[in-house]
Amino acid sequence: MPELRKDPIVGRWVIIAPDRVKRPQDFEHNFERTAHAFDPFAEGNESATPPEILAYREAGTPRNGPGWRVRVVPNKFPALSVEGELERRGDGIYDLMTGIGAHEVIIECPQNESNMSRLSVDNIREVLWVYRDRLVDLKKDPRLVHGLVFKNKGAMAGASLEHSHSQLIVNPVVPITVSEEMNGALEFFNYRGRSIYEDMIQQELANGSRIVLETSNFVVFCPYASRFPFETWILPKHHSSHYENIQRQQIEDLGVVMKTVLLKLEIALDDPPYNYILHTAPFDQPELKYFSWHIEIFPRLTGIAGFEWGTGFYINPVLPEEAAEFLRKIEV
Amino acid sequence: MPELRKDPIVGRWVIIAPDRVKRPQDFEHNFERTAHAFDPFAEGNESATPPEILAYREAGTPRNGPGWRVRVVPNKFPALSVEGELERRGDGIYDLMTGIGAHEVIIECPQNESNMSRLSVDNIREVLWVYRDRLVDLKKDPRLVHGLVFKNKGAMAGASLEHSHSQLIVNPVVPITVSEEMNGALEFFNYRGRSIYEDMIQQELANGSRIVLETSNFVVFCPYASRFPFETWILPKHHSSHYENIQRQQIEDLGVVMKTVLLKLEIALDDPPYNYILHTAPFDQPELKYFSWHIEIFPRLTGIAGFEWGTGFYINPVLPEEAAEFLRKIEV
Repeated sequence: MPELRKDPIVGRWVIIAPDRVKRPQDFEHNFERTAHAFDPFAEGNESATPPEILAYREAGTPRNGPGWRVRVVPNKFPALSVEGELERRGDGIYDLMTGIGAHEVIIECPQNESNMSRLSVDNIREVLWVYRDRLVDLKKDPRLVHGLVFKNKGAMAGASLEHSHSQLIVNPVVPITVSEEMNGALEFFNYRGRSIYEDMIQQELANGSRIVLETSNFVVFCPYASRFPFETWILPKHHSSHYENIQRQQIEDLGVVMKTVLLKLEIALDDPPYNYILHTAPFDQPELKYFSWHIEIFPRLTGIAGFEWGTGFYINPVLPEEAAEFLRKIEV
Repeated sequence: MPELRKDPIVGRWVIIAPDRVKRPQDFEHNFERTAHAFDPFAEGNESATPPEILAYREAGTPRNGPGWRVRVVPNKFPALSVEGELERRGDGIYDLMTGIGAHEVIIECPQNESNMSRLSVDNIREVLWVYRDRLVDLKKDPRLVHGLVFKNKGAMAGASLEHSHSQLIVNPVVPITVSEEMNGALEFFNYRGRSIYEDMIQQELANGSRIVLETSNFVVFCPYASRFPFETWILPKHHSSHYENIQRQQIEDLGVVMKTVLLKLEIALDDPPYNYILHTAPFDQPELKYFSWHIEIFPRLTGIAGFEWGTGFYINPVLPEEAAEFLRKIEV
């Protein structure tokens, strides 16, 4: 069973999951390990993964066999365990919690394809819908309070397999970055009486220099204080704090937006490693006026080094306005 | 002139330093770029760096020529500029500051050596003393409030040159991670009436399982909530919030401690990439009872991926107790 341990100074939780490697001696530099001849996520290799939790599949095809379009399985090396009691206890000045939670893998397509951008728009829409379905389901578990959907693309962004996939980790505590974001947004709302996300959309559309794309439902832009070169955010125009409440008609649009943005980044930066993160409100919160779900995408072109660790600042060598202009001009 | 831009939601500052690369198009994946035939930091190549700010050198040798043991120069591609006025202004909902600050490189030895652990103890002591000297000097600049000393070792940890070196970035605002750490430590002090660092030393020494090394002045241990495998902290037993107030006799001891710990990590993990960060209180604070300067060292064995970005949590596959036991047993 993994353990959650809390740093007593800054309140940061760490998941100690020793089952993921055998012994300290076995620990190796694992940055480059995506090249595999065998693809455990490909159609026909269903037995190479734990049994599926959910799959969108052709009518009449059996579970854990071929015939699916998008498939969700438990992570084979989970950071958190779904079985067990949520227990909290102290250890002198330290705090400890059992590592209860869910860690799932969303296999985005049956064929051996590493770039989400090359999937059909309909395929991407189903991936986006499966995120919703899994959040709706896991929200029912009273032990769990926040679901994080994210993608690691490429070894440098943390992917251990090439086949296009994303992950969902559902935590028993609200992550520190989520609560910081919620608190910051609430402070703005209390002070200005408006959602900061709405203000941001207004200012970005009025200014225009950081806009990458605008559709009827979404605004895509390189944020003013981009941490990374070509960092790109997707913000819904229709305010909603919980991604799991997304509507079909928004998913229709978001599928096109995702494909377009990922293709632009792929062309601009020569198939870069990247992460994207779905920011959404905790399960136990009602609909919030001050917070808006959104997606943050960042290519991993620059490393994170001592300065970033020590300060929480980032050094970005590319002006967001130049990155946005560059991305706007790319035809897809 | 670089710009400091503030994220309006979480208050994180970002340094936009476009002079560090030419155009977005020129931007390349720059993870592996330490291999250079020419060593601009070696003795005899002094003209390859900007003119020195400070050097410990043999009596009678001229500035910017051979004869030095430790040498400090401005970073050739600085993240912050030391010249100019500190100006703050708004841009709609956003905040902006001119990128005033210092960015220096500490060249740790004249010979082409990439591992600090292989330098003599006396050499390491001079490096540790030069950190102090530069902080004492930069503290006099009223525009600057916090100095961060850090080391990036190896390309995967962000180093762009192999020659053993560390860096100093002095900022016009207190970095977010520093203020979080100070606030957390103050909260503990207000609640318990003691410094958390003193409590931590007591508990670690009493328990013993996470101790790597103990000397008359320092305790070295793998922290309870280690973010990274083999993360190791060096805490002074004599409480002091500002590193720049360190005494000669502590430096004597710290030189031995640094060499021993770095050698142990090098042997244990086969010359890993690593960062270390000197945590010290802001310039404008008096001596603080609740905060203690210390050094955090973390080998970069695991990548940072979507989960860590999205949550601020870390997944560590190695128990700190096992890492410490492994490091204790290594003879150096």
